[in-house]
Amino acid sequence: MKEQSIAIVGSGNVAYHLAHALAKGGFIPEVIVSRNENKGGALAKELGCAYLDDVKKLTSVDIIVLSVSDSAIQIVADRIPDSLRKSAIVCHTSGTTSIDALQSCDKAGIFYPLQTFSRDRKVDYKTIPFCLHGVSDVVDELDTLAHLISDNVYHIDDEERKKLHLAAVMVNNFTNHLLYLAKDLLEKDHIDPKILDPLINETINKIQSMTPLEAQTGPARRKDYNTIERHLELLDQESPLYSIYGLISQSIIKTYHEDS
Amino acid sequence: MKEQSIAIVGSGNVAYHLAHALAKGGFIPEVIVSRNENKGGALAKELGCAYLDDVKKLTSVDIIVLSVSDSAIQIVADRIPDSLRKSAIVCHTSGTTSIDALQSCDKAGIFYPLQTFSRDRKVDYKTIPFCLHGVSDVVDELDTLAHLISDNVYHIDDEERKKLHLAAVMVNNFTNHLLYLAKDLLEKDHIDPKILDPLINETINKIQSMTPLEAQTGPARRKDYNTIERHLELLDQESPLYSIYGLISQSIIKTYHEDS
Repeated sequence: MKEQSIAIVGSGNVAYHLAHALAKGGFIPEVIVSRNENKGGALAKELGCAYLDDVKKLTSVDIIVLSVSDSAIQIVADRIPDSLRKSAIVCHTSGTTSIDALQSCDKAGIFYPLQTFSRDRKVDYKTIPFCLHGVSDVVDELDTLAHLISDNVYHIDDEERKKLHLAAVMVNNFTNHLLYLAKDLLEKDHIDPKILDPLINETINKIQSMTPLEAQTGPARRKDYNTIERHLELLDQESPLYSIYGLISQSIIKTYHEDS
Repeated sequence: MKEQSIAIVGSGNVAYHLAHALAKGGFIPEVIVSRNENKGGALAKELGCAYLDDVKKLTSVDIIVLSVSDSAIQIVADRIPDSLRKSAIVCHTSGTTSIDALQSCDKAGIFYPLQTFSRDRKVDYKTIPFCLHGVSDVVDELDTLAHLISDNVYHIDDEERKKLHLAAVMVNNFTNHLLYLAKDLLEKDHIDPKILDPLINETINKIQSMTPLEAQTGPARRKDYNTIERHLELLDQESPLYSIYGLISQSIIKTYHEDS
């Protein structure tokens, strides 16, 4: 990659891991910009780069990556100095926010990493799918940048990215919550929740050799209303889990039995 | 283990893998009993053991493992010859059926493997949690048997086992269905569903170093009604997924925001 300089705006989990992923790819960001002096300053120090507390203070930089909350993207983009809004590529990393939030910038793009990040948790950056969008010149530059980090680079437009974000919420947030509810159920009965771990692992490993449609088993899959009824009797009818159990079971039954 | 002989009754996925797991542990079953001559006969042939088409024909055997459907357990148990119902340990492998279904047998037990089995899919038998129940003499024998297969052996009573089975349905069946719904959503939009796989893997890997309660992220976790609303707009209001999305989001919000 030619001599480009990059500014990461934000100091949350995505900004943190993106900055480190770029550094690992041999491309240390020039500056971290964050209103949060503690987190932003610490991140800049870790990377050995500059720190600024306001995008207004940015001078010359080629690419500006906005990793800030969805509601802040447009506000922050509009605070970028006029000259940079003309010359620099300005991209955001959000799964849900349209590229239109960057309409004040001439070279707007999307640089969305489809992964869940927690500060203390190492991630294998090479496998992260990067979803890029923008006019072709911008996407070309972002493509080069993404390939420094990962082998999985996709060109995904605004509408596709919104669907993708929804799907990501389902497989990550919702799956994680089901695991929480199941483990919580056992803990309340003083059963070690770790007993579920081999099953959880196999659930995910299984779909590497078959589709989830093929891998499905269980009472709803075989329309075993007896077992479903007995499970529901174990749950508090007022609890969210009671309704979740009923709805997902119905959805499985619909998937396998209604078309037949 | 002393010279014991074992009969596996059934030829479904659990019977198939249990028989192979025992053989791998150095303990080849003496006989496979199944009304299904094709599957039962083939399994017996694979193991190099005898085959019978009816439990009525069983003569001398020390342990009888019933891996048949929940509704057949009591019926099959009652067909075991009188003398064996007195002398042999008779156990079943069901997560939901009470030990009372074996009340016609003097030495009744539970031998429940907490794992999902598909015939064509290899499983690491060593990690399967075996949940045992019965009077102490019976459990001692089953404990020895289970340890031939696995390092994870638990003593779990009838009530606990029912909760465990419910939790297993949630982490396996329901998680798998969510993965199906998410991938189906992408396929309908001609997006390669494999793009979700790194996120799915990280979702599960993450909870090896933190609890699901700590690992939770996403719009519902941060009470971001804007994003939730935009996701719901992408879904057909009549679809099960629409209701599932709403309910699980509510449940996450309740978990993190209602007690505070």
